[in-house]
Amino acid sequence: MLEEGGCPKTMLSISDALEALDGRWKLLILFALSDGPLRFKQISREVMGITDKTLSKELKLLESNLLISRHVYDTFPPTVEYAITEHGMSLENVLKELHYWGLHHRKKVLGKVS
Amino acid sequence: MLEEGGCPKTMLSISDALEALDGRWKLLILFALSDGPLRFKQISREVMGITDKTLSKELKLLESNLLISRHVYDTFPPTVEYAITEHGMSLENVLKELHYWGLHHRKKVLGKVS
Repeated sequence: MLEEGGCPKTMLSISDALEALDGRWKLLILFALSDGPLRFKQISREVMGITDKTLSKELKLLESNLLISRHVYDTFPPTVEYAITEHGMSLENVLKELHYWGLHHRKKVLGKVS
Repeated sequence: MLEEGGCPKTMLSISDALEALDGRWKLLILFALSDGPLRFKQISREVMGITDKTLSKELKLLESNLLISRHVYDTFPPTVEYAITEHGMSLENVLKELHYWGLHHRKKVLGKVS
């Protein structure tokens, strides 16, 4: 499949990526933030189906992996915004390929025309 | 990020893809099978850390999503092999981008040279 086909090093790097992006939410949150910084409630609206508890946990994990940054503004009450980092933006090609494959998969397996 | 930036259709296709590939194991199993069909125990050895129970569950899910096929050979005792399908092979670009990003992430965040 890949030129390096099946070698442990390739398996390791894919495993690293999957560990950082584990679950179905992180890439959707990053995608929501790719248009610009958002507040918690705005992300919650964009990412359909996520609970506040899960979103809160996922945001912390994304921050610890340097994929997003959290900014607190000195307003009253304080405003908190989340922004995608340069490292988060480096996932652009992964998201692009997942988007294309998701379209293909929807036609093939789900049999739905979106 | 994507040209269609943040539109609900793109979010939907990424969500479809993430649902089909949910968790950290499915893509690793597909990657292990990308070099040719394997038996259960062989996959278990290739995909480090997976338990038999999880592997069994993941193989069924991959089969229901038409990403792998299961072949039973009339030997004594019967041999069961799993093979990646054409639809599974269509994930090549996703795996490629995850591999590149995993390498980049390892350098950036994990600070390790593989």
